[in-house]
Order: sequence, then structure tokens, then C-alpha cells
Amino acid sequence: MTRLEQGFTQIYTGNGKGKTTAAIGQAVRAAGFGLKTYIAQFMKEFPYSELKSLKHLEEWITIEQFCGDEFVYKKELPGKEELAKAKKGLAVAKEKMLSGKYDLIILDEALVATYFKLIKTEELIEFIKRKPDNVELILTGRYCPEELIELADLVTEMKEVKHYYQKGITSRKGIES
Amino acid sequence: MTRLEQGFTQIYTGNGKGKTTAAIGQAVRAAGFGLKTYIAQFMKEFPYSELKSLKHLEEWITIEQFCGDEFVYKKELPGKEELAKAKKGLAVAKEKMLSGKYDLIILDEALVATYFKLIKTEELIEFIKRKPDNVELILTGRYCPEELIELADLVTEMKEVKHYYQKGITSRKGIES
Repeated sequence: MTRLEQGFTQIYTGNGKGKTTAAIGQAVRAAGFGLKTYIAQFMKEFPYSELKSLKHLEEWITIEQFCGDEFVYKKELPGKEELAKAKKGLAVAKEKMLSGKYDLIILDEALVATYFKLIKTEELIEFIKRKPDNVELILTGRYCPEELIELADLVTEMKEVKHYYQKGITSRKGIES
Repeated sequence: MTRLEQGFTQIYTGNGKGKTTAAIGQAVRAAGFGLKTYIAQFMKEFPYSELKSLKHLEEWITIEQFCGDEFVYKKELPGKEELAKAKKGLAVAKEKMLSGKYDLIILDEALVATYFKLIKTEELIEFIKRKPDNVELILTGRYCPEELIELADLVTEMKEVKHYYQKGITSRKGIES
């Protein structure tokens, strides 16, 4: 089994496009070297197109979705049900991280989930601190709390320089979702 | 055949990690919706791990490498041979873009290739201008020329906030390469 000798904690944050796709691309690259990835998606219940294509790489990449983001559009705080789903997602991801079966763990949109009070920053701090040395951990999402930037080894800010949202384009299937 | 109704030109630039992986992740997402992608990699002859895993998605994603970057390490300008390879890469990618067979065209590291005089900025301007409306075009690489930022619909700067290169880590197989 090919394993990472040294794993780090990576963060992809910022208001630009490319955070989730960079994490997925990283998992695909890792798969080419035989590394195994577990991806937990938060605040995404919608069946993003990657769910379908990653099935072709299921020997190396597992992806699961844990909670939605409807409360954001209702301008509410997450309800008990969503909080429970997010808690479960983190628990499952932690179990996978500690199982010795995965080289790469991705918590997609976990950072923005702290902003919307779905996940506590302290829970992510605890998650990062439990990371085994030979596991790479990637967290994505806008609004990364400063404490996590301090803890991470690599932080990239995806900065929006120009976006076609300004032209009134919202979400195109296969590109944005 | 599922096709894009409206395709844009996207740019991923900046000194941070995640430009190529974001483009690959985009291709993987697109594949999940049945869209077809052609990827031309410039300044990369080394067999990056993604070449292997993308074979599992070859029904949707084709990836080819056209020229190396050895001249950079020799602190030379690219020689005739490399220039010819880059020229061929652009020509092949343009042919694919105009063939009507691909929804997404990725010119990986084409932007940094202009910085190292391997590709002329004018050639990329001409490439972008020839893009059919229903094709999405993605260009990646550091040092994006200002003229291309003007032309593109979406520009994301991957900004390095913190990097483990500072710890003396260079390239890990399956993660960086």
C-alpha cells in the first residue's frame, strides 16, 4: 500500500471559484498514485455532478454528503436536524481519518459551516489536532476562522478577481454544480 | 449529447497551490454531467499522478502533455524544440476546441508559459477569441498577462497565505505531483 510519509493540513478559502474543485482535483491526483481519499461534503445535499464521475474512481475516492444549506436561504440559524447531520458528518470523517485506511481526508465546505454555526471552530481545531502524521487533511470554504489558519500548514486564498455572476449567470450544470 | 448552453473563459492564476487541481476538479465535475474535456498541459513532461487516474474517466476526459520546463532550471530561454512542441500543443488544443466534440478545453500552465516566452500572449488572445460560445475554456498558471485578465469572464487568483515549502518540503508524489 502506498502511503504518505508526511501529511499536512491544507486550507482552501476565499470568495473565488475553485475551492471544492481544487480539493477534488487533489483527490484525483492522489488516486493516480494509489492514495485513498474520503470526502465529507457539508452544506451540500444537492447532487453535484462530481458525485457521479467520482464513482468511476470509487476504488480510491469515497464521497458522502451530510447536510444542506436551506437555512441560509431562509436566513435562519441551522435547526436541530441540520446540526445533528453536521455532527454525524464530522464524526464519520474523524472515524475514517483515524481508521488507517485513508491517506487524504477532505472536509468540503466545513469552513463556511463554522460561519453559519453549523460546526464549531473548536470542533475543527480538535479535528486537525487528531490528524495522524501520514494523513493529508484538506478543509475548504469561505470565511476561514483565524485560529484554523494558524493551525494549518498550507493556506490558499481563492480570490475573486472577476466573475461572470456579474453578468447575471448563476449556476450551470456541470460547471458550477 | 449534453452540451453547455453558454461557455465562458476562466483563468486560475496566482502563486498559491490549487490552480491545476481546480481545473482538473472542474473537468471531473463536468464529466459527471456528461460533458467532455480536453486538457493540454504545458511545461509538464513529468508524469503527474492525474494522468493515471484520469484514464478511468477517458470517456469524458482526454489529457496530453506537450512540452517540458527544463530550460527554466537551466536559466535559459526555451530552445527551438520546446517552442515547436508548445506550438503544436496550442494547435492541437485549438483543433479540439473547434471540433465540436468538447465542451471544456483546459490549457494547463499556458499562462506561466507566456512568462517564460514559450507561448506568446497574442497566441492566447487569438485562442480565446476563437472560442465557440458553447465551449468553456480554462487557462491556468502564474503570472497571467493583464490583457488576458481583460478578456476572461472569470478570474480567480490563488493567493499563497501560508505554505509548507517554508518547512523545506518540496514535492510529494500524489499530492504535489
